[in-house]
Parts: sequence; structure tokens; C-alpha cells
Amino acid sequence: MKRLAVLPGELDNRPWAPDSTLMSISDFHAWWAQRMAAGHFSVERKPLTALKDWHFESDTGNLAHASGRFFTIEGLQIRSGGVETGSQPIINQPEIGILGIVVKEFDGVLHCLMQAKMEPGNVNTLQLSPTVQATRSNYTQVHKGSTTRYLEYFVGPGRGQVLVDVLQSEQGAWFWRKRNRNMVVLVTGDVEVHEDYCWLSLAQIGELTQVDNLVNMDARTVLSCMPFSLPGEADAPTGDDFRDALIRSYQYQPDRSAPARHTAGEILSWFTEAKTRCDWSARLVPLAKVSGWTRGEHEIADHEERSFRIIGVEVEAGTREVKSWQQPLLYPRGEGHAAFVARPIDGVLHLLVQARPEYGLMDMVEMSPTIQLHPGQTVSDIKEPFLRDLLVSGGGTTHYDRMLSEEGGRFYNALTRYQLIEVGQDFPVDVPPNFCWMTVRQLIDLLRHGHYLNIEARSLLACIHSLS
Amino acid sequence: MKRLAVLPGELDNRPWAPDSTLMSISDFHAWWAQRMAAGHFSVERKPLTALKDWHFESDTGNLAHASGRFFTIEGLQIRSGGVETGSQPIINQPEIGILGIVVKEFDGVLHCLMQAKMEPGNVNTLQLSPTVQATRSNYTQVHKGSTTRYLEYFVGPGRGQVLVDVLQSEQGAWFWRKRNRNMVVLVTGDVEVHEDYCWLSLAQIGELTQVDNLVNMDARTVLSCMPFSLPGEADAPTGDDFRDALIRSYQYQPDRSAPARHTAGEILSWFTEAKTRCDWSARLVPLAKVSGWTRGEHEIADHEERSFRIIGVEVEAGTREVKSWQQPLLYPRGEGHAAFVARPIDGVLHLLVQARPEYGLMDMVEMSPTIQLHPGQTVSDIKEPFLRDLLVSGGGTTHYDRMLSEEGGRFYNALTRYQLIEVGQDFPVDVPPNFCWMTVRQLIDLLRHGHYLNIEARSLLACIHSLS
Repeated sequence: MKRLAVLPGELDNRPWAPDSTLMSISDFHAWWAQRMAAGHFSVERKPLTALKDWHFESDTGNLAHASGRFFTIEGLQIRSGGVETGSQPIINQPEIGILGIVVKEFDGVLHCLMQAKMEPGNVNTLQLSPTVQATRSNYTQVHKGSTTRYLEYFVGPGRGQVLVDVLQSEQGAWFWRKRNRNMVVLVTGDVEVHEDYCWLSLAQIGELTQVDNLVNMDARTVLSCMPFSLPGEADAPTGDDFRDALIRSYQYQPDRSAPARHTAGEILSWFTEAKTRCDWSARLVPLAKVSGWTRGEHEIADHEERSFRIIGVEVEAGTREVKSWQQPLLYPRGEGHAAFVARPIDGVLHLLVQARPEYGLMDMVEMSPTIQLHPGQTVSDIKEPFLRDLLVSGGGTTHYDRMLSEEGGRFYNALTRYQLIEVGQDFPVDVPPNFCWMTVRQLIDLLRHGHYLNIEARSLLACIHSLS
Repeated sequence: MKRLAVLPGELDNRPWAPDSTLMSISDFHAWWAQRMAAGHFSVERKPLTALKDWHFESDTGNLAHASGRFFTIEGLQIRSGGVETGSQPIINQPEIGILGIVVKEFDGVLHCLMQAKMEPGNVNTLQLSPTVQATRSNYTQVHKGSTTRYLEYFVGPGRGQVLVDVLQSEQGAWFWRKRNRNMVVLVTGDVEVHEDYCWLSLAQIGELTQVDNLVNMDARTVLSCMPFSLPGEADAPTGDDFRDALIRSYQYQPDRSAPARHTAGEILSWFTEAKTRCDWSARLVPLAKVSGWTRGEHEIADHEERSFRIIGVEVEAGTREVKSWQQPLLYPRGEGHAAFVARPIDGVLHLLVQARPEYGLMDMVEMSPTIQLHPGQTVSDIKEPFLRDLLVSGGGTTHYDRMLSEEGGRFYNALTRYQLIEVGQDFPVDVPPNFCWMTVRQLIDLLRHGHYLNIEARSLLACIHSLS
């Protein structure tokens, strides 16, 4: 279904739409440097036991905020056959926040109102963020800060035309069933642009995904759900085989000639089957019941020092709703790695999608990139020899390879290397049952619904849009 | 998407397809009477503390099976703003079972292989059930019984062509995030029909939904997900205004002339919005921590005697995998009530769908019938005056009104009155934000995915198919 069929006139919202007439990329970088210089930010480590308004609950050992809102650090327990098989700390944030982008037409091109936003866990302080990025606590003002800017375009009677409105998951390894409301709203009237915001076209944002640690995770997930026009006759062939195969991957394919390797029904059945293979269940338990982890003054850490830590920080910021605050953050050891393997099949680019179980996901399994390694894991942790060999040999053609940041509001310096690796005809089309070849269009269609693509798959998909 | 486009030839699988040539309805009833006479079944109450293989865990007070499998009776706690606001016992069954119907073409008509199956909680012992109805414990033989009959058509290399394969929820008031795998598989080869099974056409099953407590809950949910052909030119008009409006409700409507009141995108956004309105979260806690409930020798019950009880039973059966066993069951006080209000809008029948929060649902809210009352609730418990008035006045035209049973494997004598009530032009089209008018086709399309329609809505939808 073409979601933007209702858009006025001849609006060009292909991912490879023409450049903006409002601001050039070099102007953008100048504005960005100015925002960096204008802000006052500091993030200092602070003992967990000294965090203002945070405390360890006496009965559970959970780390909680005095208001009972925001989030808690609790325990996650895995059971199989009624027996505990593992446990770890986990972030529990049951309330649903809004990640929203305001879009508007300028000279026939769709533009997004993007924000230069500081988050305490960002490795580089400021990253390019959605128009609105607010927890429910934020926008209902539990923290007594100022009102969330531009929120009125997303909620209430005067909001814009809703183009995207879907609950999507976040990191299943670190969050307990977290999801946020991903929204895109179209506005037509004048929008006052505050100094921390600017209008960028989809093509420009695509270009900026080629910069390390610039487009933040929240922007990437919303952009992945953005409805795109189908490519027209004029878009292909371009003479570039990869680009042609990618453009065909955005198109609906005729029913029975089936250049898409699997039907939508087959994909849904494959996904259901993957869930039924899980013989474990997960539940919240008191943090005090998590074994193998120790709570120190400065961090909660596992004895083997292989997993993440929970640390405390004190933040001072000049451009946030609240000027200073203290909070826990999850601090991974090392960097993650997420790569889609892509292969043209009958001239149409297919991505090799993994049905990946993660203990914190709402329904156990979501679709992930072909390869997904947590911080601290290495190539030798990849179970499948054909994928391990690919990474070790450095085979294939790498079309995308950048370091991008995960959520800076909850994670401290959490970086993931994102890749798109094209493989050739020698790469097997028949794959193990936890993998499935899909077209970009098939993934886009699933993004109308929540809990199909995990956050890493959505992040990477947003970057793939920039390649077309 | 027409899921059955891949079916061979001119297979008629409209819900109003012609009658079967295999077995008449009177033959069916004769066969049914014979199955009733042939079976040996007894269900006797037994103290919870005396149930073989079941015990109350010393640390949690949970009622659990010795194997660690099957299900447990645990506690559910509701929190708002970090504070407990309520608790109750709940059934936790994390493993995914299969509810599957084998279908096959006979003389151009789709037939379903249905089972006469005994469940201990059934008010009338035998009900018409799917071909396969098996928990994971059943089919992996944790209980050491015989193999599940016809399971090979659903799992493994020789299975049939998969037409439906989706995880759907069950009662959110009584189950903790339970879901089962709803499957329909098409077979072409010979199928040996065991004496407890028979082939019935969709039209015949529709006719049998007009009998109280005959088509069981598991059959209804799978039937609701069954892909139907679109009605053809010849199906309407019939001269019957209601039937014509219902048939139009199965059809895709042209994009912009929009006889469907809302687009698919608007419906998804309405549903997302309903979830964000919930300011509570639910979690499992030890049964011993549930307040307001007492554990006696014979039952777990609430002090106010308004909610359900947990009881124990001893079962003897001649036609089940295991000949005798003991288990807990949930025993509601009184009967439930589920009614869809339907109204033609521009000649197309629309159902008034409720976005209904229930504490045990996986993601807090699913779509329910317009009116849904738990056992023990009465018309005065309906919050919306315009719906209360409708039921009190007895207004509207009732097209369906039957008593049907909920899952007899977990619930003891749980009956629900299901209704379809047509209202006229005087009934408001503008409704409160937790309601939305949808066509039957829009509901069918959502059933490709799990966790949109709740079990009561799916049950009722399966019955509505019989009216066309």
C-alpha cells in the first residue's frame, strides 16, 4: 500500500530524491559546528549510591527513581522447563515514548525537521535526532522541565497528518520489552524553526548516514519506517548493477513470476516457526536475585567482566528541558557489529534476514541483520560457518561500513559497526532455517507493524536507503 | 492479498460456499451422537492439595507441575507510577501450542478435517475441534502419551501447503501473555480419517456455529484466520439489505471513494494511540503475594467472591492421548458476554471495534467486540451510555445470538454469550476514542498478524462468516 498516496501533488519522496534547496550539506556542517560550540554540556561519572533521586529498593535491590517513573534497573531471569538457566540485569521502562519527525514539502521535496540533540551517553555529545524524542515522563512533565518543543504536532487536536504511527522495539539484550512510538507527521502551515533544528531532505539525511556517529538511533528507526514512493521507470536501469538490483528491491514484483524469493505468507510462517523453536521463557525478577553479578559503589558488573556495566553519571546541559540531572547508564564493553549480507537473486537485491531470539524482546524473536554481535563478541562467536568464513575472508563487496551510536539516553558510548556486504552467485541461496532472503520492499511492508524488525535491522535499513 | 490465490483450480472457499457432498448435516449429527455414546469420560472435583504431580512451590506459592512444563498458576501484579494498584492469580503457559486445521478439496469445495474432542472443562464433554490441538508438551510427549494424530501435516518435511500460520492471543483476563500457533494446511493426497474426525465444508461449520456450545474456541480462532475468496459479482445484491451490506464488507473498496470509513493506516494509528493511553504495567509475581485472594484446600478464590476460582479435577477419558490425569482449571462465576454492534455505513456493514486493555495481554491492548463483559459483570458495568442503552432497550436487530464455550482444557464451564446486533441510521457514527468502525475485510487483513484481534473478537468473527 502506498502510504503517501494521499500526499498533495507531485511530492518526491523517493529515498533518492533530489537535493534540498533550503540548505546545502556544507551549510549544514557549519550550522552543526555552531551548535556544538553554543552548547554547554558535561557528563561526569558518579557513584550509583550517590545518584540524586535514585535508590536501591530495600526488598528487591532494584535501582529506581524516587518518582516511580522513568526506568528501573531490574533482573531478567531465563527459564527452560521450569528451571532457571540464566539471569542478568536489564533496563525496564514500561512507558511508551514518542520518537517523531515532522515532515513538510519545500519545492516539491519532502523535508524532515531534525534536531541537534545532546544525550549524556553520546560519544560526541550532539547527534542528529528526530524532531521530538520524549519519554512519557518527559512530555507529561514528571521531571518538571519545560514543555517538549513541537510535541503539539504529534498529539492533540491540532496535530499534523499522520503518515507513520507504529510501536517499535529497542535493544532486546538490554531492555525489557521496550518499545517506542515511531511517528511521522506531515504539516503544511508555517513552522517556526528553533536554533537547535533544521530542515533536511531525505537525500541529505541519507548523505549524513555516511558520517560516523551523526544520525542517532532514534532518527534511524523513525526514518526506517518512513513511507517511500515506488521507483518509477526513469530510475532504472542506471548501468550500475548493484544500484539497479537495489532499486528493483524497492518495487513490488508481479505475483507469480516471483523475483522475490518468498511470498509474504511464507515469510510470516517462517517467522512464526522461529518463535515456536524457542523453548525458554523470560521474566523480571528482583535485581538482588541475579547471580554472577556484583553491585559495587561505582558499577553493577558481571564477575567475568564480559558483559555490560551499569554506571551512574551527573549531567549538566544548557539545551535540555532540565538543566542538570543524574541517572544510571548501561556501559557496554567494546563495540557491537551488525551486517546485512545482500545478494542479487534474479536481478533483485535480497537481504539475508535472521530470525534472532533475544531475551528482552516482547515476543522472543525479531528479524535482525544477517550478522549481529554484541559488544565483546567476536567473529568466532558467529555460529554459522558460511557467515564466519565470509567475515574472516573479507569477501564480498562492502557498500556501507560506518560506526553508529545506540541510544545515548540509556547507553554510555554504545557504538555499533553497521555494514552492508554484497555477495555473489557463489554464496548459497539455500540457508539454515533461522535465515530468510527478503527484498527491501518486503521489509518496508513489515514495518507498518511493530515487533517484526529489531532495532539493529531498522537502523541498517535506514542507511541502505541512502545507497539507492 | 488473496492468500488462496495459489489454490488449485476453481476452488470455492467463500464463506457462503455450497454445501458438502461428503456428509449431510443430519449425517453429521448422527455421527456426533455416536461419538458421544462411544466415549468414556468422567471429570470429578479434587482438592488442589491432592492433585497428582501438582504442588504449591514453597518459596512462591505458585501451583506448578512436577515436570516444570504445562502451565503454572502464578500472581499478576498491576503497577501505575511504580505503585501496585491491583493483583490476581493468572495462568502462565509460556510454551506455544498448535491449533491446526487440515483442509482439502472435495468436488471443488474446501473441507476441514474436524475432530470430536473431549476437554475436561467442557460443559457438554465433546466439542467440535481443530484437526490438531496440542500444547508443545503434548506433541513433544512430556506427558508420555501417544503421538498427536495428524501432527505430521503441520510440522516437519512432509507437511501440507501452509495457508495460515500466525500466533494469536488467548484470554487476557485469565492468561499471562498466552498465544497459540493458528495454522491451516492444505493437503492433496489421501488422508485416513480416524473415527473421531470428519470432513466438513466451511458452510457446514458455519451452520454448526448456530448450535450452542458445539464449535469450540480453538476451532473458532483458526476459522477466523481462514483465508476467504472475495465475493464475486454473482453474490450480491441478494435483495436482503443486511446480507448485501455484509457481503460488501468482505470486499476491498476502491481507494478514494472510501466506503470503508477509515483507511488501514488510520486504524493502525488509532490502535497505537490506544496503547499509549495505558499508564499501567503488568508483571508476574509469586502467587503468595497476591492480596485479596485465599488459597483453600478446594479452591483459590477472591474474598469478595466476584471473580473466578482455581479448582482441581481428576479426569478419565478413553479418547485422549493420556487415559487419566489430574489438573487445575479456572472456574468463572457466571457467563461472559461479547457483542459486535454492526451498522451499514454507505451500504457497507461496519463493525464497531473496541481497543480494549487487558492485563494479561502481551502488549496491553487488543481489538475486542464492541461490548465485552466478563463472567459476573452485568450491563451496568458497561461504561459507555450509548452502548448500555442499546442493550437495556433491546434495540437493534440481532443476527447472531448463541452461547459458546471458551477453552475447555484450562477453563471449567466457561461460557460466553456471543451476539451480532445490527443498528440503524440513528446510531451514532462518531464514537469515543476507544472505538473504531471497521469492515470485515479490514479485520480479516489484520488477522494475518498476531495480537490485533483478541480471542473474543476472533470467535465472533468466525460466527459472522456463517451469516453471509
